Formats: sequence, structure tokens, C-alpha cells
Amino acid sequence: MADYLPTAPYRGTRDFLPPEMSVRIQVFETLYEVIERYGYVRYDGPTLEPVEIYEAKSSQEIVQQQLYTLTDRGDRRLAIRPEMTPSVARIIAGNAGKLQFPVRWYSHPNCHRYERPQRGRVREHWQINVDVFGSDSPACEIEIFELIFDMMAALKASPDMWVLRVSDRVLLNAILTTMVEVTPEQIRDVSALIDRWEKYSQDQLAHDAAELGLTDKQFHRLGETLGAGENLLDELPSNVREQSLLMRVLATEARDLVTFDPRIVRGFDYYTSTVFEVFDTSPENRRSLFGGGRYANLVGLFCDAQIPGIGFGMGDVTLMDFLATHDLLPAPRSEVDVAVIPVDATLAEAARQVARELRQAGLRTSTPLEIRRLGKELARANRSGAPVTVIVGSDEWSAGTVTIRNMATGDQQQVAVSAAPSAVTAILALGG
Amino acid sequence: MADYLPTAPYRGTRDFLPPEMSVRIQVFETLYEVIERYGYVRYDGPTLEPVEIYEAKSSQEIVQQQLYTLTDRGDRRLAIRPEMTPSVARIIAGNAGKLQFPVRWYSHPNCHRYERPQRGRVREHWQINVDVFGSDSPACEIEIFELIFDMMAALKASPDMWVLRVSDRVLLNAILTTMVEVTPEQIRDVSALIDRWEKYSQDQLAHDAAELGLTDKQFHRLGETLGAGENLLDELPSNVREQSLLMRVLATEARDLVTFDPRIVRGFDYYTSTVFEVFDTSPENRRSLFGGGRYANLVGLFCDAQIPGIGFGMGDVTLMDFLATHDLLPAPRSEVDVAVIPVDATLAEAARQVARELRQAGLRTSTPLEIRRLGKELARANRSGAPVTVIVGSDEWSAGTVTIRNMATGDQQQVAVSAAPSAVTAILALGG
Repeated sequence: MADYLPTAPYRGTRDFLPPEMSVRIQVFETLYEVIERYGYVRYDGPTLEPVEIYEAKSSQEIVQQQLYTLTDRGDRRLAIRPEMTPSVARIIAGNAGKLQFPVRWYSHPNCHRYERPQRGRVREHWQINVDVFGSDSPACEIEIFELIFDMMAALKASPDMWVLRVSDRVLLNAILTTMVEVTPEQIRDVSALIDRWEKYSQDQLAHDAAELGLTDKQFHRLGETLGAGENLLDELPSNVREQSLLMRVLATEARDLVTFDPRIVRGFDYYTSTVFEVFDTSPENRRSLFGGGRYANLVGLFCDAQIPGIGFGMGDVTLMDFLATHDLLPAPRSEVDVAVIPVDATLAEAARQVARELRQAGLRTSTPLEIRRLGKELARANRSGAPVTVIVGSDEWSAGTVTIRNMATGDQQQVAVSAAPSAVTAILALGG
Repeated sequence: MADYLPTAPYRGTRDFLPPEMSVRIQVFETLYEVIERYGYVRYDGPTLEPVEIYEAKSSQEIVQQQLYTLTDRGDRRLAIRPEMTPSVARIIAGNAGKLQFPVRWYSHPNCHRYERPQRGRVREHWQINVDVFGSDSPACEIEIFELIFDMMAALKASPDMWVLRVSDRVLLNAILTTMVEVTPEQIRDVSALIDRWEKYSQDQLAHDAAELGLTDKQFHRLGETLGAGENLLDELPSNVREQSLLMRVLATEARDLVTFDPRIVRGFDYYTSTVFEVFDTSPENRRSLFGGGRYANLVGLFCDAQIPGIGFGMGDVTLMDFLATHDLLPAPRSEVDVAVIPVDATLAEAARQVARELRQAGLRTSTPLEIRRLGKELARANRSGAPVTVIVGSDEWSAGTVTIRNMATGDQQQVAVSAAPSAVTAILALGG
């Protein structure tokens, strides 16, 4: 017996067959369109990057456990990008002299992380990245939040299906120091603890807090503070409020778009101020869909310019789970608009000629590569989702006509070959 | 002095800034549309694949010199895909039971090869892959050739700018054995020699031929045969003609699309019959733009089904060089259709409101993130290519109006806020 190579994709990666790819394309083209309506322009970068750009600022988890690394034949240490933000910071730094800041950029790269595959987690995912570089105005936050609303609306997600939870690391730091009496040295570890707040048990959190040197009283106070949610905003001392960019955002019309939540921290080390995450509100899928934040210093790894940024990344896996949960996935597109079927092999060239006419009218048109009986070919056209077929018969062809068949109703009509494109288009318009 | 990380992309890879990305997207969306008009549906696969799928059938050059390989944390030997054909063969094999053959598939992956960067060669390129699986009818060749013609026409390349050169390995093998008296054992090496025919000097070729055991007479005869071009077709013995699929293709209307050339071999080991390459005809760029062929046995690496395939891959680098040489590159798209400019900071929220109306009409619309003087902001809008600006002034806003400015002519008109979308659309239509 022959030894066959395995047909499964590498663990944690996916094959997208045409129906799945059609869904993916429809969802992301919808998003591209909304993002471009806000004046964001698309860029792209390499899959391989020097490993140093992640070692500098990405999370420890990514660098130590999740990075795919390799050494090329010229002994360069490379990584397959696990996220896009370091790449875009590098590109911005390298081209800062010729850009007109602020810039609005987006991209749609695939990113690789070595994770244990499970629901919502794969090793290769596709991620929309949206960023503004070169402004620290709260207008950036307002725009990004509004954009997220429009993206979700364009995917037909109603506002009760999800929530945009926001915080500000500057605000959180001030809260922790003034209200919980955390020392500046403890802030990073306590922030990491807060990031786990909704995932771990209270006992576990209490244990971890004690290890960080928090007293029982501080831990209790921390719980109260984080649990206060939006009420916390009213309790804040005015000097704390004044330090926060987010407070300026919340003073505008964007206030209605977001829910302040001090538990939002985000794992990435590079965020310095505003942070936000979109959560599914459905009980089966109560996890973060995507998120982002402000990073004041990331471009500074590559050059001496101060170019603040704010942005978010939206991965396909959690997004598709969300859309599936809420029954919002679009149907795969039909393979063609119209299938042209010759009744026998002598009419194959005639069928190709008709197909050419239909294609010139912009119609997605197939002709059989193998000649089969008409009934069989009609059944195939039906399975491929073709809404219309054009049958090329011998007598009709001699008379310069073809038969147009509406596959939904079975209605047929005979038309001149030159009238076939408009006849097909008319039937498609009915189905649209 | 601080130590900055380098901003250049990894050698042989590219950053696509928005203007370059806009050109890339326009070119490839044009191609997607043509390909879909032929009923091809898009699929996608992983960037990482088990290294074995290349070791089995890809060229020695790829496997031994060009493959990026790595071992994951679970000790799996992986490669970053250097080409798409082995992946698509794997996917077809894994899903053969649920597919309706023949299938028409296309994809647009990035592929990595460790090459010495030079004109037309990079380490990461983007490649359109178009394949038919499940038919050995010459109708596949006819369709693929016609598709290539339509793709080139859609890119505005006139037929004198390029040529589609075709051959058939079955035909070549028969020619070599009957007309040059090459032994079956020599065929593979002699084919590789022919693949170098146009790149090496005659002396070098003669030397290599001698090493393969060809006599001077055979080498001379080989040169005559390869040089005969299309005339060779008339000289072929009828038993040779009958064995060739390509001869059946050349008996149809597709004859006018191609130039038979026995020097076309293609480096890939997996091609078994028809092979073809598109060449630029311009003297500065006389190289293969892209090519493909038939592979009878590739899916057979993964399963016991016999599923023949035919397809081609079209890389972005050589294609863009071709378009640039012939002055066919599209201009980058403007960043936005319209920029909304508040005359001062108090009108920022009003400007956002106007922008919302324009976006709802599908217009790509920006508002400033930082408030600047009107003149400065108009200059910025101009540089970003905005054909229209909407100026939000204080008195006008109180009266419910805004000023619409045609950036090409400088003409301004005052309209009600609700009429702004149609006024902007009217100006854009003039420019279209």
C-alpha cells in the first residue's frame, strides 16, 4: 500500500474552502468599506520580521511562549509576526519624514502564535488592524469608538449584542495609588492581576494579591474599586480626572458609545493610556472579541521622533464565532451567476462563444469542461448555486438563439444570442 | 545616544505604504474580477505547511536552497510555503469526497523563497494561483489560455506587449526520443538543459550536453529542433501528434492565442503535459512573467484518487515590473473622497456630525484629529488627494448650512447640511 502524506492542515491552522472563504471575504470586505469611509488607507508589511522588534515591547507571553522563530541562511534571527503593531510602528518610523501626520492606516495581515488550539484560539489568524499615528488628541478615541460602532452595525450586530468597555491606564494608575494605596513599583503586577480579574476565582486572586504584597484590606478595597464600574467616575478626585485623556473623551458625544470599566487592562505592555475591549454580551460567548489602546512610545523604539499611536486589532476567529453565535454570518456566494450548457460536444465551442458574451457583460459564467447529458449538467449547475443557465441546443444555435432557464422557477425562454446577457441580468435582478 | 532598532524590512521583503498598497490592490482586484467571471472561486490555506509536502514534488532548487524551515515547539518540521500548488493539492485530496469535480479554484497567497534579492526576485511575494482540478479535457487548457488573455486585457496590456508560449512535456519527450534520439533515462536532464537554453551561452550548453552524454550531432539536432518553433509542429510524425493533449488544444479556436515553443519546459518537476509561460515582449524586460502547466499526479501524494490538475501562478513582482515597463500601473487612489474641515475647535463636533452624514452616503470622509487654521487644513486635504472639502463655519452652521469646495476648481457653494452628500457626490461624478 502506498504511503500518503496527511491531508490535514498543520495543527491550529485552517484551510478555507471556497464557501468558507466566501464568508470570510464578505465579512472583511464589509469592514474594509466601513474603515475606508473614515479615511483609513490600507498598508501591508512582511510576514517575517527581525525577532528584536517583539523582544522589545510585546508581551512576555508572546515572546517566550508563542513566537515562531527561525534563523535564515544568512544567520538572521527572524520571527513570523505574532501581531502587526510592532511592524506598523517600524514602518511609520522608517517613513516618518514623508508622511503627513496624523495618518490613518489599516491592514489585514495573518499573524502566528504558538497556542494550544481551542475555541477562539488558533495558531494562524487573520487580523484587521486599524491605527492612527501622530496625534494625542481625544478626537482619535472618539473616531475609533465611532468606527467600531459602524463596523459592528455594518455586520448587522445590534447594540445589545456587544459592549465597548474602556479604561485608561493613566486613570487606573492614579486610582490604584490614591484609592488602593498601591506603590508605583507594584503597579505593573497589580495591573496584570486586574487583567485576570474576571477569569480567576476570588480565592486565587486573593492569593496572588497577597504574593504581590497587598494587604487584605487593600485587596478588599481593590475589589470594591474595580466593581464600582461607571460609579467610580463620580468618586474620582479631580486631580485624577484631569490627568486622564479618557475623561476628556467621556465629556463628548462619544460618552454614549462606551462603558467605563476599570477592569479593562489589556495584556500588551506597550499601552500607555486609553485601553478598550469589545465584549460579546451573549452568555455562551462572554469573551473579548477584540480590543486596542494608546501606545505613546512604540515608534520610539525605531527613531527619536515622538509619534503617539492608538489602534486596535480584530481577529477573524473570535469575530466569526460572534457572528455565528448571533446568526449573522452571510451565506456563501454562488459559484457563478450563470452556467452555459451545450447539449452535446459538437456545441462546446458555441457554448464558449456564448460564455464570452456573458462575461463581457460582467457576469460570472461557467461552461462545462467535460460534456455530460443536459439533465446531469443542470443538476450540477443547481448544486453550484447558479441562478440561471443558458442552454445551447443544436437547432436553436443554427437559428442564432439560446434557451435561458431561471433555475429557481424552471421557467425557460428562447432569446437571440446577443440578447442573452440582458435576459440573464434581468433574472438575476429578480433574485437580488 | 539611544540605540534604535532598524526600520528597514527584512531583506527581500517589502513594506507596502498606502500608495503602493493602493496600486497592488487595484491590480489584483481587477484580476480577481476577471478570474471570477470564469467561475473560479477563491480559497485559502495556511502559511505554514509540513515540510514533507515540498520534499515530495517541488523542485530541488526550492527544497535544498530556498525553503524557510522551522521546527515548532511540538517538534513538527514546518516550512513557510514557497508556492501554493502543493497546498492546494493537499486541500483537494482532503476534501475530494465533498467536491463536485471539476472544480475551478483560485487564491492569492504570499510565498517565501530564500533568494538573492534582485530585479524581479524577492523573498516574499504575492501570487495569484488559478487551478482546475478533476478534468483532463483540453477544454481546461482552452479556458485557462482565454482567461490569461482576459486578465492581460483587463490590465490594459495590448497583445503586442506579451506572448503566451506553450509546449507539452509529452510532446517534448516524443520529440527528444524520436527526433534527437535521446534515451528515456536522459530525458529529465535534457529537459533541464532546455530550460536553460535561452539563459546560457551556446558553448556552455554544448559543454553541459556533452556531460549528459549527448553527441555533437545530437546537440546540433537538438538546437535545430528547438529553434524550429512552430514549424516543428508540421514536421512531427503522426504518432507523436496523437499522444499530445496540446495538439488537441491547437486544433481549436485557442490556436490563435498561443505560440508553440518547444523550449518551454518549466522548472517544476510535477508538470506532466501542457506547460506554458507568458513572456514580456519588451527588450528591457524579456523574461517570463508567469506560467503554469498540467500536473497529473500531484493530488496522488495525498490520496489514492486520480485527480489531474492544471493551473498557473502569477507573482506580483514580475507583474508589477511588466506594468511599470509598459506604463500601465494605475494611479494610487486618493485617501478620501471628501475632507470635512471645521474652522475652529468649537466646531469639531459639528464637523463630525457632517462627516457622519457623508459616510452614510458611502463617501470616504475624514475630519481633522487636530484643529489647525483653515488654510493649513485645506492644503493638507489637497495633499491627501481629497477632490472635495466641506467647510464648517460658525455662522453657516448656525444657519444649518456648510460650504462645499471643489478642490480642483476652487469653486465653492453653500448648501444645507442635509444636501451635502448629494452636492459632494455630484462633484465626484465630474472627476470620475
